[in-house]
Amino acid sequence: MAIDLGALTAIYEDLHRHPELGRQEHRTAGIVAEQLRAVGYDVTTGVGGTGVVGVLERGSGPTVLLRADMDALPVLEETGLPYSSTATATNAEGETVPVMHACGHDVHTTCLLGAAAALADDAGWRGRLLLVFQPDEEGGSGARAMVDDGLFERFGTPAVVLGQHVAPIPVGVLGVRSGPAFAASDTLRITMHGVGGHGSRPEATVDPVVMGAALVQRLQTVVSREVAATDTVVVTVGSFHAGVASNVIPDAAVLGLSIRTADERVRAKVLAAVERMARAEAAAAGAPREPTIEVRDSFPPVVNDAAACEQVRTAFAAASRWLVVDPGPVTGSEDVGILATAAGAPCAYWLLGGADPAPFAGATTAEEIGNVVADLPSNHSPRFAPLAGPTLESGVAALVTAARSWLV
Amino acid sequence: MAIDLGALTAIYEDLHRHPELGRQEHRTAGIVAEQLRAVGYDVTTGVGGTGVVGVLERGSGPTVLLRADMDALPVLEETGLPYSSTATATNAEGETVPVMHACGHDVHTTCLLGAAAALADDAGWRGRLLLVFQPDEEGGSGARAMVDDGLFERFGTPAVVLGQHVAPIPVGVLGVRSGPAFAASDTLRITMHGVGGHGSRPEATVDPVVMGAALVQRLQTVVSREVAATDTVVVTVGSFHAGVASNVIPDAAVLGLSIRTADERVRAKVLAAVERMARAEAAAAGAPREPTIEVRDSFPPVVNDAAACEQVRTAFAAASRWLVVDPGPVTGSEDVGILATAAGAPCAYWLLGGADPAPFAGATTAEEIGNVVADLPSNHSPRFAPLAGPTLESGVAALVTAARSWLV
Amino acid sequence: MAIDLGALTAIYEDLHRHPELGRQEHRTAGIVAEQLRAVGYDVTTGVGGTGVVGVLERGSGPTVLLRADMDALPVLEETGLPYSSTATATNAEGETVPVMHACGHDVHTTCLLGAAAALADDAGWRGRLLLVFQPDEEGGSGARAMVDDGLFERFGTPAVVLGQHVAPIPVGVLGVRSGPAFAASDTLRITMHGVGGHGSRPEATVDPVVMGAALVQRLQTVVSREVAATDTVVVTVGSFHAGVASNVIPDAAVLGLSIRTADERVRAKVLAAVERMARAEAAAAGAPREPTIEVRDSFPPVVNDAAACEQVRTAFAAASRWLVVDPGPVTGSEDVGILATAAGAPCAYWLLGGADPAPFAGATTAEEIGNVVADLPSNHSPRFAPLAGPTLESGVAALVTAARSWLV
Amino acid sequence: MAIDLGALTAIYEDLHRHPELGRQEHRTAGIVAEQLRAVGYDVTTGVGGTGVVGVLERGSGPTVLLRADMDALPVLEETGLPYSSTATATNAEGETVPVMHACGHDVHTTCLLGAAAALADDAGWRGRLLLVFQPDEEGGSGARAMVDDGLFERFGTPAVVLGQHVAPIPVGVLGVRSGPAFAASDTLRITMHGVGGHGSRPEATVDPVVMGAALVQRLQTVVSREVAATDTVVVTVGSFHAGVASNVIPDAAVLGLSIRTADERVRAKVLAAVERMARAEAAAAGAPREPTIEVRDSFPPVVNDAAACEQVRTAFAAASRWLVVDPGPVTGSEDVGILATAAGAPCAYWLLGGADPAPFAGATTAEEIGNVVADLPSNHSPRFAPLAGPTLESGVAALVTAARSWLV
Repeated sequence: MAIDLGALTAIYEDLHRHPELGRQEHRTAGIVAEQLRAVGYDVTTGVGGTGVVGVLERGSGPTVLLRADMDALPVLEETGLPYSSTATATNAEGETVPVMHACGHDVHTTCLLGAAAALADDAGWRGRLLLVFQPDEEGGSGARAMVDDGLFERFGTPAVVLGQHVAPIPVGVLGVRSGPAFAASDTLRITMHGVGGHGSRPEATVDPVVMGAALVQRLQTVVSREVAATDTVVVTVGSFHAGVASNVIPDAAVLGLSIRTADERVRAKVLAAVERMARAEAAAAGAPREPTIEVRDSFPPVVNDAAACEQVRTAFAAASRWLVVDPGPVTGSEDVGILATAAGAPCAYWLLGGADPAPFAGATTAEEIGNVVADLPSNHSPRFAPLAGPTLESGVAALVTAARSWLV
Repeated sequence: MAIDLGALTAIYEDLHRHPELGRQEHRTAGIVAEQLRAVGYDVTTGVGGTGVVGVLERGSGPTVLLRADMDALPVLEETGLPYSSTATATNAEGETVPVMHACGHDVHTTCLLGAAAALADDAGWRGRLLLVFQPDEEGGSGARAMVDDGLFERFGTPAVVLGQHVAPIPVGVLGVRSGPAFAASDTLRITMHGVGGHGSRPEATVDPVVMGAALVQRLQTVVSREVAATDTVVVTVGSFHAGVASNVIPDAAVLGLSIRTADERVRAKVLAAVERMARAEAAAAGAPREPTIEVRDSFPPVVNDAAACEQVRTAFAAASRWLVVDPGPVTGSEDVGILATAAGAPCAYWLLGGADPAPFAGATTAEEIGNVVADLPSNHSPRFAPLAGPTLESGVAALVTAARSWLV
Repeated sequence: MAIDLGALTAIYEDLHRHPELGRQEHRTAGIVAEQLRAVGYDVTTGVGGTGVVGVLERGSGPTVLLRADMDALPVLEETGLPYSSTATATNAEGETVPVMHACGHDVHTTCLLGAAAALADDAGWRGRLLLVFQPDEEGGSGARAMVDDGLFERFGTPAVVLGQHVAPIPVGVLGVRSGPAFAASDTLRITMHGVGGHGSRPEATVDPVVMGAALVQRLQTVVSREVAATDTVVVTVGSFHAGVASNVIPDAAVLGLSIRTADERVRAKVLAAVERMARAEAAAAGAPREPTIEVRDSFPPVVNDAAACEQVRTAFAAASRWLVVDPGPVTGSEDVGILATAAGAPCAYWLLGGADPAPFAGATTAEEIGNVVADLPSNHSPRFAPLAGPTLESGVAALVTAARSWLV
Repeated sequence: MAIDLGALTAIYEDLHRHPELGRQEHRTAGIVAEQLRAVGYDVTTGVGGTGVVGVLERGSGPTVLLRADMDALPVLEETGLPYSSTATATNAEGETVPVMHACGHDVHTTCLLGAAAALADDAGWRGRLLLVFQPDEEGGSGARAMVDDGLFERFGTPAVVLGQHVAPIPVGVLGVRSGPAFAASDTLRITMHGVGGHGSRPEATVDPVVMGAALVQRLQTVVSREVAATDTVVVTVGSFHAGVASNVIPDAAVLGLSIRTADERVRAKVLAAVERMARAEAAAAGAPREPTIEVRDSFPPVVNDAAACEQVRTAFAAASRWLVVDPGPVTGSEDVGILATAAGAPCAYWLLGGADPAPFAGATTAEEIGNVVADLPSNHSPRFAPLAGPTLESGVAALVTAARSWLV
């Protein structure tokens, strides 16, 4: 397999240094298109906004979809890496925010570019490669936008959807799990409406900061009291914004929630509980009107296909270069499942180890390995920093290996 | 008394339409200086930043200080007035915020300009007028900055400090209270430090949103449990900011607190309780470090002088145009006390009725009047809207009447 | 004035050692009746349950009502006094509870017995003494029960209602305040209904412990956010009971609330807010039914008559043995006002200093005195312990002095 | 198999009507001993307090331990059954509490008596039966007490430990799970120490009700924020007791916690978090001293042996009368594991369906069955009511079937 690791690393560091928020991946899409064209792909840009599609056809054989995501997060980087991001962007609310590839989508994009080159360079296969570089995975709108823009009508329906997500497990480890692998994700914005006024006269107001704080606390009981301990549920209030001055009670508090569930019945129960609590906290405070509850995005669990996973696992094992594990279900979410569902194709989406293996030395039991993982900065942390070179090498190889097992 | 109400109203509407945040009152100061010069005052600008001083001397007699404040608030106006503000400004944190004269300082400034003209036009007095237009009353830094910039060394020490604050009581009513009249104010910024990470993996984080929410709830007990019901204490969390994305647990939550107290012993107790609770909530969450607690500003109670209040009250009564009441102590705060303390002069600072008297028709008991007041938009509300013409007329007359009782 | 302090102290210690809960004051009533008869009063027992009335008539003159209360509290004594209570009793809920004179009603009863003897021994007055020893002040039912049992129809209507309450201010100090002197008191029992079940399966239950805890926290905001800082309001949850086993989620949580307010408008607002919050917290939890809110007792503020207070104050001053102060309004409550209102007579009810003066040495300002008071065990504390001898002497003298100022 | 269902049902109804708290099972133990002796067992009472051991030896062969528990719970029965309990008892705190067999130990005891009779009546086996009727499973002290009293030294070491727990799944279903089957359980009592005083003067107190309520809310975050969504953890505050009067702030609040975990590492983390939070909430309130945290009981997970479970499952399947399912891990806890660990013997402990199958008609998917279960009263509910006759018949047969598979 031909991988120019130096060139790939340069692309990676460049992408890392210039992250872009979801739906704003113009620069990244340009680099992707340029790289794909350079190695012979037929490239279409602007699919579903900023999405890029590359196609390479070689005789008759199955169509294999390889997918990467390109968007970054509004996080202020603290990795201390020489190629750290100092970028800012204007978010959907019109605020200026820092931007960082804190979820590793720069790894995904770079690995898929590397695999594109390696497969183009490899004469030994027949079939059709459909490379999908999607926008806005974090916002949950990217896969949907590409499907709605005619992805499969325009570029054909694949036999399988393949992809990977970098994770804080050691480089050299791949995690493959069949069945429900990633959780459903629902993102809500809840606005608690109060009545503003002077900070010294709360009696003339309905304080939305207190209302919002009470709601944050009450929401903890969804997980602790309303679902079974064996259900997989996360309710996170990732943002809370209210007020512009200490001495002015504001009119409203705005909470951003991210909800993860692994089961549709539990998901419905959790969403109903969140709404019930928001309404009741407004009632408790004597709020002038009901809270505004907006669903910002919502995507289903990723359910990996058993046969596709078995095929991937066998191919990985045959390569004799990875330790392949079952990571169990994870509470992270992914919109890759939307691609597979829309295509009616099986999905195999795996975890790509990206952490320095050094701290894992000597950890042999699941518990010991878990302890090391727990101490590493996880995805979305301002300190998330995969070990670039070895991770890229492993990730390119994994994509190529999996794709080749379908190509004839 | 010569008042050109049309001209004054035009100045008022102009100031209202162009509010400026504290320490940024450049346009306002320019208008003030121009108006004062036009009627013969000796004007100095740039005192304590953007403060303006006007002096008019007429033979020998006492120096009377008349004070107004010029700054506005980061509030989005909702009055619907034809001269509403649509202004924005960059605050100290670098954020773009809306600006509005939600506290009525435009009334104060306009009334003092009207009084300046009326007194200049009046040949019947001897003494010295020292007009002080101060910046940043809301931030609590303006009076202090002017004193520190040599206000009294450069312009002389007054025999009395006079001023007024517009309030949602009917036009035609003045509120004079001797003794402690306005509360002490302490503004704190508390940063609760957590450990950020992916919204789906709270176990790898220390969630600062939950920590901040728990602190907001705990702070309610300062007032409800730790001070006597007969103590006057307000603890408001006017702002709460954490996170930029629903699915990223942030590293910190920042709370803006405004604390009002009427007694130094209680003030010390309250500040200690707030600090104790912030530290304990961090400990409860297992935070990686202690909260950061910053005092943003801090000013003492306004204690009106008994003799000066009696003199003002007698002068107002003699004018037979106002209903003069004792409003009781208010929980609002004012840095005018800093001027009086620094000058070693007595202070008389009164409330100026600015509300439409219509809704008060038929309200005769204190309770009935209180009910009407409770329904009106109070200072700092986005709907605070004094009845411009009559309020300006009453406010100019009150300043002139009080000043003339000292001038000989 | 003839006071046998040794005998009185023996009665006091005996009453202190044998406290009885409200409506159970049988032993105490027996001692009171016996003592009154011994000095010549016409005694009626069983008035309004366990109440005792003593009458002494001497020629024509005004009827003066002197009032004491006899009931104790369910508190476990921790004073360490040699005559400490070890008593227990069965309360209205059928539970066995400790009992202690933690509010000083034993002082009130003993002082009135002393005053009864002293006045009987004093030939220098004309008029009619109406001594009222009432049950159940703490439960709020005692004064009402005696009035409903025909107190004034059977024993005549007084010209004035006099009485006193021992307080943690120094012996030798009396506190007289005209106007609203004691707060209104409302006692509520709120039952939050959940759905019980196994402690390991909260998802099959609605947890009333969490619901009750959320309500306790939310109730803090009544005082901190919904009333003005200058309003006098206390909302105390004095009891919280739920569950009998750690591993069984119970069906309900029962909260006992005590609410103090000084103003009828604020009182109505506070009671409405408490009910609103209880209902909303049940809704937030998805409770199977509305909370049960029971008013256990409710009594109005004590409003002292201005002229009667002036008369008492003058009489106390003439005696040259006390320091008479204005204690300000207190948040404690008293049902003595029910007697005065029902009789249509003015009320003068004062505070009787009962604390050792030693720690007050050197405290001269209100703040310094307040600091000492704050460190003393207050009424209802398990460590409340008036300085018996001097307090009894002062209390007897105060009752006699006040009464003599009405008698002719 | 000879089962006199009429006689068994009579025993069951009698036990149900006369439940006894843990360590007080005197009457139950007497009935057990009498029944065992009647069918030929060698009976020893008073083992580990109120435990009963029955031995029946028939030639050479393995020793099979069959275990039942005899204790009931402090729950007020609401089943409406004709043989409902109206019993009360004095608990360890000296309080009078209602008692009910809300966990089905009466089923366990009756089934084991039925199995004892059936096996005694069956001549077709060789080996040794060791029947263990243990006290205080709920309190977690019973199995430990019997082991410490020399159970295995005195009565021999078994080849296997067998037992069952009735559950709200349909009669005719048995649940067998190898590996971790029941959670670890830790029961804590936490006393939050405040400073009591008068309900109207919270400023002179440190309110333990507010402290306890804040702790209850904070504890929710252990499950919602501090462990992974895929960890199985329950933190229940089953009891909360503070105060005896609404108008007296008490000195302390006492919380009873039940904690379930499935993994030792998570268990240690959870226990540490609970302690951290209790200490921090005391600090937040300015408590006079640290909370008192007492471990009341603590027992490990039940880990079923894979081979023993396979053997039991095979025997059940051969009987062709049950549907045998894998119930997954449950959050309930059991001290039966202590017997197996102390004996060094494999354990097979299964769930016995006890619910009316009618509501399950038509439910075929796991989700549909789960929905029906969720609506049934679970163990520890005051409405828990197994369908007596069929459950007893099934439970006797299950014990006999499992035991016979070891006996030769």
